[in-house]
Amino acid sequence: MKTISENKCCGGVQGVYEHDSAQTQTPMRFAVFAPPAAQKCPVLWWLSGLTCTEQNFITKSGAQQFAAQHGVFLVAPDTSPRGAGVPGEDDSYDFGTGAGFYLNAQIPPWNQNYRMYSYVAEELPAFIAENFPAADLSRQSIFGHSMGGHGALVIALKNPGRFLSVSAFAPICNPSGCDWGRKALRGYLGENQTEWRKWDAAALVEDGKTAPPLFIDQGADDEFLSGGQLRPDALETACAAKKQPLTMRRQPGYDHSYYFIASFIGEHIAHHAAALRG
Amino acid sequence: MKTISENKCCGGVQGVYEHDSAQTQTPMRFAVFAPPAAQKCPVLWWLSGLTCTEQNFITKSGAQQFAAQHGVFLVAPDTSPRGAGVPGEDDSYDFGTGAGFYLNAQIPPWNQNYRMYSYVAEELPAFIAENFPAADLSRQSIFGHSMGGHGALVIALKNPGRFLSVSAFAPICNPSGCDWGRKALRGYLGENQTEWRKWDAAALVEDGKTAPPLFIDQGADDEFLSGGQLRPDALETACAAKKQPLTMRRQPGYDHSYYFIASFIGEHIAHHAAALRG
Repeated sequence: MKTISENKCCGGVQGVYEHDSAQTQTPMRFAVFAPPAAQKCPVLWWLSGLTCTEQNFITKSGAQQFAAQHGVFLVAPDTSPRGAGVPGEDDSYDFGTGAGFYLNAQIPPWNQNYRMYSYVAEELPAFIAENFPAADLSRQSIFGHSMGGHGALVIALKNPGRFLSVSAFAPICNPSGCDWGRKALRGYLGENQTEWRKWDAAALVEDGKTAPPLFIDQGADDEFLSGGQLRPDALETACAAKKQPLTMRRQPGYDHSYYFIASFIGEHIAHHAAALRG
Repeated sequence: MKTISENKCCGGVQGVYEHDSAQTQTPMRFAVFAPPAAQKCPVLWWLSGLTCTEQNFITKSGAQQFAAQHGVFLVAPDTSPRGAGVPGEDDSYDFGTGAGFYLNAQIPPWNQNYRMYSYVAEELPAFIAENFPAADLSRQSIFGHSMGGHGALVIALKNPGRFLSVSAFAPICNPSGCDWGRKALRGYLGENQTEWRKWDAAALVEDGKTAPPLFIDQGADDEFLSGGQLRPDALETACAAKKQPLTMRRQPGYDHSYYFIASFIGEHIAHHAAALRG
């Protein structure tokens, strides 16, 4: 593991590290905030949105003060392999580099490297457990934004019992039903829509998967909401039908930016801390 | 005035605007955070450091939540003219573009455009008063970081009675005594060191200028502290000799970054709010 940077922040340490991933077959960077706690701390995963690296969340969200206050260990991975050398991976902002969609690609040429589900849900947790003694992986929660909100919901629904709480900011709730999602699912998985349903939060709920009560903030003036990319209604319908608890707050006037995230990050971290610390 | 962006944040609005400056003879951008308050709010000026634009503070400091909580109106100007066309202005990070040092240049070719003192201390306050009815310019405070901490201290010392409180993060306390400062003072003012003293916080205190009690946080592991660029000791000596009140907190482990600023921004805004709201 290579240390890229470490900065004292809010009494703890904001670090960025790099390691070689077996899943993506590339070096991967991730960010860790270790709070100023004497004991092992529960782990809260943050998954970022399209175009982000591990940097956006740690520079713009203001999460560290709340993680420090609640004694929560934050991990924020990158959003895709970088420099995998797959032809076309840098051609668009919403597919390939910066747009791994937290799934395992099934079709060439993507299936060798674009395995962000296994990286985030399996490889990185094991790596954190081994290399960060302050992280208590027996207590985990997960949240994210936009594509990363999709990732948080899907990873929680696919791993029942692992996470004590789940939340999201403006998640892509139903990728099979929006342009971003269809491009990604078709590109990484091919045309088989049965396969698509395994990576779609609304469809997973429809198909009987469960998770802790879902806590979601959605800006009411989010351009990607009006543009049909996020589809909170589809998730609400599925959760209502299946009695999956869901709190969906539509926040008047807020957009899709980190200004929206920074406005509610404290409430989300408090929500997770309450679940993690029982 | 042109609106560059407006985002709802912490119940208020984070805006970025552009106007034509008579002082710099260029378009200038500035950031304004208007808190969610029913009445006119006191104004807190933030001055940024070398290489920054109006963006760094508003994306990285986490200031909005505290300004919203305390009902404080934040203004963060850019750090220099941009695109003035002065030969050499883009040649280095610490002189010219992004490095206006909040002074009025005295010598050609800089003296036509590099007039950030008059821009920040005179032109922009008048423009804010005229265009933002929510801003109550009868109550003002000022703070900043590094070169902007120098700016906050110097502007306060040159305008006794205007500011109700003054604080800084890792300010350049004595530019006449460090490499950054000497390059800027020589380049913008020429060789006359009597002129330099008018733009040097420690020298201004030595020469009898006064300000509200100064509140300064300085990271003890700041590379620019050990590199001799910041010289808090010179300001401490001057303040002690002249009985200018000064609280200089050396914060163990902290560096010069926005992670340091974000760690203490809440305390600084609370300090200013107490003075502004009496």
